Amino acid sequence: MKKLINKPEDVVKEELEGMALAYPDIIKVHLDPDFVYRADAPVKGKVAVISGGGSGHEPMHGGLVGVGMLDAACPGQVFTSPTPDQMLEAAKTVHGGAGVLYIVKNYTGDVMNFEMAADLARTEGIRVLNILIDDDTAVKDSLYTAGRRGVGTTVLAEKIVGAAAEKGYDLKKLADLCRKVNINGRSMGMALTSCTVPLAGKPTFDLPEDEMEIGIGIHGEPGRKRMKLKTADEVTEMLALSIIEDPAYTRTVREWDEDKGEWVDVVLEDPPFKAGDQVLAFVNSMGGTPDIELAIIYRKLHEICEKKGLKIVRNLVGRFITSLEMQGCSITLLKMDDEMIELWDAPVKTPGLRWGM
Amino acid sequence: MKKLINKPEDVVKEELEGMALAYPDIIKVHLDPDFVYRADAPVKGKVAVISGGGSGHEPMHGGLVGVGMLDAACPGQVFTSPTPDQMLEAAKTVHGGAGVLYIVKNYTGDVMNFEMAADLARTEGIRVLNILIDDDTAVKDSLYTAGRRGVGTTVLAEKIVGAAAEKGYDLKKLADLCRKVNINGRSMGMALTSCTVPLAGKPTFDLPEDEMEIGIGIHGEPGRKRMKLKTADEVTEMLALSIIEDPAYTRTVREWDEDKGEWVDVVLEDPPFKAGDQVLAFVNSMGGTPDIELAIIYRKLHEICEKKGLKIVRNLVGRFITSLEMQGCSITLLKMDDEMIELWDAPVKTPGLRWGM
Repeated sequence: MKKLINKPEDVVKEELEGMALAYPDIIKVHLDPDFVYRADAPVKGKVAVISGGGSGHEPMHGGLVGVGMLDAACPGQVFTSPTPDQMLEAAKTVHGGAGVLYIVKNYTGDVMNFEMAADLARTEGIRVLNILIDDDTAVKDSLYTAGRRGVGTTVLAEKIVGAAAEKGYDLKKLADLCRKVNINGRSMGMALTSCTVPLAGKPTFDLPEDEMEIGIGIHGEPGRKRMKLKTADEVTEMLALSIIEDPAYTRTVREWDEDKGEWVDVVLEDPPFKAGDQVLAFVNSMGGTPDIELAIIYRKLHEICEKKGLKIVRNLVGRFITSLEMQGCSITLLKMDDEMIELWDAPVKTPGLRWGM
Repeated sequence: MKKLINKPEDVVKEELEGMALAYPDIIKVHLDPDFVYRADAPVKGKVAVISGGGSGHEPMHGGLVGVGMLDAACPGQVFTSPTPDQMLEAAKTVHGGAGVLYIVKNYTGDVMNFEMAADLARTEGIRVLNILIDDDTAVKDSLYTAGRRGVGTTVLAEKIVGAAAEKGYDLKKLADLCRKVNINGRSMGMALTSCTVPLAGKPTFDLPEDEMEIGIGIHGEPGRKRMKLKTADEVTEMLALSIIEDPAYTRTVREWDEDKGEWVDVVLEDPPFKAGDQVLAFVNSMGGTPDIELAIIYRKLHEICEKKGLKIVRNLVGRFITSLEMQGCSITLLKMDDEMIELWDAPVKTPGLRWGM
């Protein structure tokens, strides 16, 4: 296994220690239970926005903590859900008196543990709402999921919701905004190569030298299909059209109802994209894919959006939700309204995403 | 060859087209001859700072064009020097009447072509000075170089000199500053894996599954030695100590003498690091190495600097001077003074490096 690590079991702890040393003006790190949090937390009167998930997707989530984005992030071991005690401790540490929003990617372990953490936090008098991100159009159910997986839209939701929290949105309004981002965002990814989880020591899957996998998950879970390698333009077209032409998607998710004081089933429907929509176009490297290739993908995506009548009003091109060193990419399209554009443009200062300050 | 590209011969052109579409508020792209330049160029009365080199090291240099950094960048084909006509056209396009500084990495082709371009620009009435970056402590001469290679310090020089140009430094003062950054910066890299140049279609070199190469160049040129894999802490120590303990280095470089109107030999000496120095610590991914590993390296580097009495006053951790998808890292230490710290902190807005705006 070719990795710049020490003992595989120390990877996450040592990464967090390194981050604390590298970004002391932006974040602090709490170990055991592990979480990364804003250096200036708690921010009094502001809703605290918290996310988390397995490590290995950096900069998401720990690298997205800071002013204008997350108040805290809870990292599990690589590709493994964090535990409720991490989420609870993070909430208690960054809670500024205005409640906590948990942004949760739709993976069974994450969903279950964030629900448990929310219940525990409420017994300690903290208002908490959980919003799911389930934006991956590749598969409806998967190895680790009931329903669609949560992928690229998570990064965009954390930016937009983080800016809104900074601006003073209350918890209810923030949860509504996060849900709006989720139902308006869709993603699809592909892989050229696998990646190796440090504790496993060998590649997560085998992908022959002349094949790629379309619709892959961020943990290397199987996608839609394997096929012979194609050109960047062909791959981009496959991903973009899958997203753009996906029909309306209806599903039931669990959210906490504050009036009833219980978890309730909520039916959500994604509106399909249509000509005239304003979108944010997000081209993401799975980790090992160089900038030069991302630019080539963006070039084609821009052409496709134009042909479909989608106006790209903002974009993000780079490595934001990764699978360690995996080569491949994902595309996310997020339908934007004026509120979301304004929040996207707001200043942000995190280790992994920063502008305006 | 597993890459998200179309025809290998179109990689650079299509990348540039993609960048122009992705960052229209920051850069413009000129094709044939190829160069990337500031969207608001020329900036009247400001010295224009230009760099360039082979493609494949993104975001350097094209992704480092923008307010507070480069005015233009000239990309060659992957790992191939750009040509004098690119550098000349770039100079003519961004020249704001106060002269041009070419920041040149020390590779034979780059040096020769930037000298030729400077001579041509002078015949067109543009004042030009060339400053070399030769900071790689790994080898004294190499496959493509007389003297040390130019690597990580280039990114730092472009940031610091770019900020100074923005602040109104004149050409002579800017060249002096760039020379100062160069002699105070030192780097060393290593690779776990090779990379594949699109037009070559196969890996640049072979590196067995249990070996790594210390002192590798950014084009995969041979380094100091190959050895069995070691831990991140051991690798970091090897790189950091090679840099910190390298003795004073004296060499002769060619610079343009404006008074004499000719190229002259200039003797430069790097002062060695000593306890009490303030440094910028730069941990760079060669492309395919994930953030999680960079943080582990930074953790150890911080410890070593502390032990050696070097005070890290600023840092940069990420992918800035890459070798396509190569896995590996480089470390750069730059001795900082107050002037350099102030310029480092100044706002910058480029595709690949951005803060404060």
